[in-house]
Amino acid sequence: MKVLVLGGCGFIGSHVVDSLLARGHKVRVFDRQPERYRDPLPGVEYQFGNFRDRMSVIDALSGADAVMHLISTTFPSTADLDPPTDVSDNLVGTLALLDSMTALKIPRLMFLSSGGTIYGVPDAVPIPEEHPLRPINSYGIVKASIEHYLDLYRRTRGLMPISIRASNPYGPRQGHTGVQGVIGTFLRRVLNGEDLEVWGDGSVVRDYLHVSDLAELCAEAVSRDVTGAFNAGSGIGASVSDIVEIIGEVSGSPFKVDYRPGRPIDVPRSVLDVSAAKREFGWQTRIGLAEGIRETHAWMAATR
Amino acid sequence: MKVLVLGGCGFIGSHVVDSLLARGHKVRVFDRQPERYRDPLPGVEYQFGNFRDRMSVIDALSGADAVMHLISTTFPSTADLDPPTDVSDNLVGTLALLDSMTALKIPRLMFLSSGGTIYGVPDAVPIPEEHPLRPINSYGIVKASIEHYLDLYRRTRGLMPISIRASNPYGPRQGHTGVQGVIGTFLRRVLNGEDLEVWGDGSVVRDYLHVSDLAELCAEAVSRDVTGAFNAGSGIGASVSDIVEIIGEVSGSPFKVDYRPGRPIDVPRSVLDVSAAKREFGWQTRIGLAEGIRETHAWMAATR
Repeated sequence: MKVLVLGGCGFIGSHVVDSLLARGHKVRVFDRQPERYRDPLPGVEYQFGNFRDRMSVIDALSGADAVMHLISTTFPSTADLDPPTDVSDNLVGTLALLDSMTALKIPRLMFLSSGGTIYGVPDAVPIPEEHPLRPINSYGIVKASIEHYLDLYRRTRGLMPISIRASNPYGPRQGHTGVQGVIGTFLRRVLNGEDLEVWGDGSVVRDYLHVSDLAELCAEAVSRDVTGAFNAGSGIGASVSDIVEIIGEVSGSPFKVDYRPGRPIDVPRSVLDVSAAKREFGWQTRIGLAEGIRETHAWMAATR
Repeated sequence: MKVLVLGGCGFIGSHVVDSLLARGHKVRVFDRQPERYRDPLPGVEYQFGNFRDRMSVIDALSGADAVMHLISTTFPSTADLDPPTDVSDNLVGTLALLDSMTALKIPRLMFLSSGGTIYGVPDAVPIPEEHPLRPINSYGIVKASIEHYLDLYRRTRGLMPISIRASNPYGPRQGHTGVQGVIGTFLRRVLNGEDLEVWGDGSVVRDYLHVSDLAELCAEAVSRDVTGAFNAGSGIGASVSDIVEIIGEVSGSPFKVDYRPGRPIDVPRSVLDVSAAKREFGWQTRIGLAEGIRETHAWMAATR
């Protein structure tokens, strides 16, 4: 099967490409620029362009049997700064993709959604897929809208979409500029000999998933003809304090933690119920949090 | 209070303007073109322009104490034809409006949402506001997204938004080209001596609300400082067959009803729970369905 990976040079995309190649698929990558931390992979076709340039995307689609859509021009932490641009780039851009796929009769699409933002403040944890979608930030609003449109295109245009609602992915090749997640940001600071800043008391709980476990699920999902939405997380909650403690054990170097008066935290506790993905795809997470942080620390120490 | 009515020359907007004038408010209308069925109203300021032209909208906002946003470039029955345009026009356009209101420090906004499409297939009727938002068509997806953004701008930008989720409005000055609702469409056909076409068996139930009852609620809502979302309907379900029967009594002229094999009807039954609006605003619907259809028939007969 020939798979087009939109965003295949990004953090998650690069791992998805690895999983696809390991399964023997042919891979074409569409992205703005080459991978940041690796040379081009042998056997992978690269096409560089802008997701909003519809003709470039149509070009990339030609001959593909399935599409994996991992592009977002925003992060959860940045999208609120400019909602009109977030919507124009990511929602309108995705709808143009769906129209192009319909026109080219390519029905199979895996979409990377967001289990961390699509539900908003959960009624209870772990959160099952049936939980109402009540996103409270722009990133989640756009993801929820896209999922609604995927179902509309399924019913009216013959699209075969599957959404993977990722929790908080982390691991090697993640950016660590402060916008992409607490694990990479903290590890970078510790490696730089800087103190850690924790906004609030460290009790905020999230569901951290190693990126290669996420990539395996994405690669399996696109290979099957299941539609719908599936949570992708570890199913286990970890607090910021837990992360800090693990990093202390892993890094072996002393650091100070500066607890600052909390920003109002919208969602105190978010953990995903991942039983559906396990049942449907026989999926298992393979890398525990301590092991994953250790590996990420080693990668970061080797590449800085 | 000076109120800017975006879409104030449209079907619902023209009635909202009447309600505002009756309450003694100053009114400025922004729309693409003048009212179709009436001359310009004395004392109302009209400004014509395109909602996507941000500078025109900013111009219209200047000096306004509150804004009523009734513009949609699509109907529920047409939006699915071109989702990217629906989103660009209505969602991105509305976000630009919110940014302009924030910049100009005009916090009060009444937004006309859609109780008929925002919930999707309801778990039960009547539908309360707390029902999950699971829209299944583009019109409803855009309305749901806008409501999510209204709440985001309330929390982060000081906006004071209220959404009125209208059911199926009908009444004088509604278009009757077949896309704007069954009552106007049927009345027009009967007045033209044509047969009625019913797709399916006539059992589909909707909540029809006379436009002047809706306008009264909108005008009351913008005058208060309540935020959130409120259903606006009659709270009573009527089937297509009920409508046909009332039209038969009202019109006095014979017509044939041609029942055609049904299009798949996504939502068999939609009726709104309107107790929250009644409680919060002391609102009452004043015009029953038979009376309202009679009045609409008389208006249509007089203006064709």
